[in-house]
Amino acid sequence: MTNHSHLADRLADRFGSRLITSTAALEHYAQSEGPHEYRPPDLVAQPLTVEEVQCLVVTAAEASYAVVGFGAGTSLEGNAASIRPRTLCVDFSRMDNIKAIRSSDLIATVEPGVTREALNLSLKDTGLFFPVDPGANATIGGMIATRASGTTTVQYGSMSDNVLALKVVMADGRLVSTGTLARKSASGYDLTHLFTGSEGTLGLIVEASLRLHGQPESFVSATWDFETIEGAVETVMSTIQASIPIARMELLDEAAIRACNHQSKLGLVERATLFLEFHGTPNSIAERLELVTAIGMDCGGGQLKTARATEERNLLWRARHHALWAARSMIPGSRAWITDICVPISELGSAINLAKSKITEAGLFAPILGHVGDGNFHVFFILPPGDKESWAKAHLVNEAMISHALSVGGTCTGEHGIGLGKRKALLREHGEESISVMKTIKTALDPRNILNPGKIFV
Amino acid sequence: MTNHSHLADRLADRFGSRLITSTAALEHYAQSEGPHEYRPPDLVAQPLTVEEVQCLVVTAAEASYAVVGFGAGTSLEGNAASIRPRTLCVDFSRMDNIKAIRSSDLIATVEPGVTREALNLSLKDTGLFFPVDPGANATIGGMIATRASGTTTVQYGSMSDNVLALKVVMADGRLVSTGTLARKSASGYDLTHLFTGSEGTLGLIVEASLRLHGQPESFVSATWDFETIEGAVETVMSTIQASIPIARMELLDEAAIRACNHQSKLGLVERATLFLEFHGTPNSIAERLELVTAIGMDCGGGQLKTARATEERNLLWRARHHALWAARSMIPGSRAWITDICVPISELGSAINLAKSKITEAGLFAPILGHVGDGNFHVFFILPPGDKESWAKAHLVNEAMISHALSVGGTCTGEHGIGLGKRKALLREHGEESISVMKTIKTALDPRNILNPGKIFV
Repeated sequence: MTNHSHLADRLADRFGSRLITSTAALEHYAQSEGPHEYRPPDLVAQPLTVEEVQCLVVTAAEASYAVVGFGAGTSLEGNAASIRPRTLCVDFSRMDNIKAIRSSDLIATVEPGVTREALNLSLKDTGLFFPVDPGANATIGGMIATRASGTTTVQYGSMSDNVLALKVVMADGRLVSTGTLARKSASGYDLTHLFTGSEGTLGLIVEASLRLHGQPESFVSATWDFETIEGAVETVMSTIQASIPIARMELLDEAAIRACNHQSKLGLVERATLFLEFHGTPNSIAERLELVTAIGMDCGGGQLKTARATEERNLLWRARHHALWAARSMIPGSRAWITDICVPISELGSAINLAKSKITEAGLFAPILGHVGDGNFHVFFILPPGDKESWAKAHLVNEAMISHALSVGGTCTGEHGIGLGKRKALLREHGEESISVMKTIKTALDPRNILNPGKIFV
Repeated sequence: MTNHSHLADRLADRFGSRLITSTAALEHYAQSEGPHEYRPPDLVAQPLTVEEVQCLVVTAAEASYAVVGFGAGTSLEGNAASIRPRTLCVDFSRMDNIKAIRSSDLIATVEPGVTREALNLSLKDTGLFFPVDPGANATIGGMIATRASGTTTVQYGSMSDNVLALKVVMADGRLVSTGTLARKSASGYDLTHLFTGSEGTLGLIVEASLRLHGQPESFVSATWDFETIEGAVETVMSTIQASIPIARMELLDEAAIRACNHQSKLGLVERATLFLEFHGTPNSIAERLELVTAIGMDCGGGQLKTARATEERNLLWRARHHALWAARSMIPGSRAWITDICVPISELGSAINLAKSKITEAGLFAPILGHVGDGNFHVFFILPPGDKESWAKAHLVNEAMISHALSVGGTCTGEHGIGLGKRKALLREHGEESISVMKTIKTALDPRNILNPGKIFV
């Protein structure tokens, strides 16, 4: 008998095979890249309805269990990890219904387990799409919980900008509705934004209404290599400062391009490269391409190669999205630790320079990739699992990057959230007073600290 | 001796002539349009620094005074009204410094008393502007506190979308910083959005960092009359549903046009009219104009008259912004009560129809104007001050509009906030559970209910 038998017994009838207790199956919920060590949850339940989520929270609370929400398992800072004994993991993968598509309002209402790819597939014939693209095929619930963003945020915003309304199960089992289906509202406290990015510590998201956008009349993607990474970054900063609309503006440094070539046979010139995309009418795209080209040519830009056919564009973006696996393929048996900072756009160059020089000093293989149009970039540390010295060096590079970002008015995470990994950085970023306000809210809404305990706060 | 002498004595040395206690001067803070009756505050202080705001809050709390923030006095739902005995009003008009313009980051950092017009004047030569335009020359602090929006929100977003970071004085006098200067962040609870729209009930905003936008290469404004208001609304819905970028999309009904003609001698055809504006390159604007024209001509659009010269455009938008005074000029000695709802875009037609038919039934003069591209519109009830029957009828029209908005998934206020006037509507909109979460947060952060008591919640 394990110590979770009591809770499992209470849930067994209602959840049947949707209650997972076997050690092997529980291990699935403890997999992770990166530096964090998790334990498997004691048990996992896969609810189908809001009422079942309410039942899980209430029953777990009665049995003094912690409750951790779980989507696609793609978070990067241990955000959905089980870390304490007596943890019930609520796996939302079966709550994956698209409840309504109101195409005349540009709104979709979904359950939290719907993935962004599934949502976009179902929108295909509506003329609409959901733009937020963190790379991984994350669930909408997880993306809201971590305030995710990604490649298209430079034009369409992050999850913070694209969630209109939520239903949330609170720590005491109450169901709360936030927001409305209107495009804007000034009615009362903005609970939608409070839950967005709260990483399951204030409530469990059980339904979301999302802003959709019109599929653009045309798309042009492009790759563009630069003599130096500084030139590529300068091009990004000038494009953003000139407010030229651009749908994607991604940087891959030389190491990342090498990895992508290795994996995807792209045949790209192995130099720092921008991956771009423009959405609009053919004329407006042509105008913007001309403006951006003029900026980049002054900064040592090489050949800007456009991709207009859908297949060609998909190939390019698939390569970008598979950069993690490409990078890992360069060191067989390696693990990846992906970190994430975001700085004011004028500080992008200094932040990338600092990261590059620290990586070089440390002698690590660590490609830099980023949603640079937002001032946001990642370092992919590719590390042999057992090599403690390399992991320690990566820690130091990460700390130096965070310190620099904070010193120039930036943030310790643009899109991955705090989870376990950035709890101390959060405190450094916002200060004691601000964190005490966050903790006051947490304590007021979850006085027994049942929801995802140990995350966000040290 | 009045009951405020104790607090006034304690503040007199530090604030000198910036402490207002004369009855005549206090009356200035009790002026309002609309249906709400206020009392003057007991005293008003005009701080110059964050430290002075902290001193005011702490000293007022010790003396058991309520603290109400005040900007330009342009709010419409009694948001900044003093309603209780023992109220200290904190007038931010002297904290009006623009602290920094980081043009290379598209960010301005301002004190709360800076008005939106003053900010834009100081940005004139930077190539940047701050877009949020509620009509009145409100202060930035007030606009944040009420989550304001306005004519350009359809393209540039509301205050919710354009505030990056805040400094806030809490009920216990602590100074809290929220957000960063990065364009996005996933670090911790989103306190910036929590304070935005909290109407001074959770803290006093003492500094804000705002997103700026590039001044477009060119502008075209236009007026466009329609055979029927239904045709104008249909044009709006189709334009938004087609995701055609448009910077302003305002509706003025026939009564509003009549008033504008009366006041501003615009010589417009007295029919329901859209005021439009496009921002972009000349080519992209031409493309969009063509698309929108095609939509509107199918809906009974008359002559679309463009205004390209700056002076001509300014004349047009000045007329729009002066619509309130124009409307009041139609009934000498009248007062105006402006209400505000926002609905999903597909419901705009039904919501405007309902408002129009209720106004006609009631026999009121009440022009309809709105930021219809957002699904948001206002009714300007123009009422003789003493005519209780007309005020009662306006109340009923307002209630019917709110009930309809809520029944179609909309909100009781798109941009004016809750203040005093919409407290019951807030409860109907969000329900007991959601309001209890808001109240829990309020109580946790302001346990003595010092900050703007009696607002937002019944």
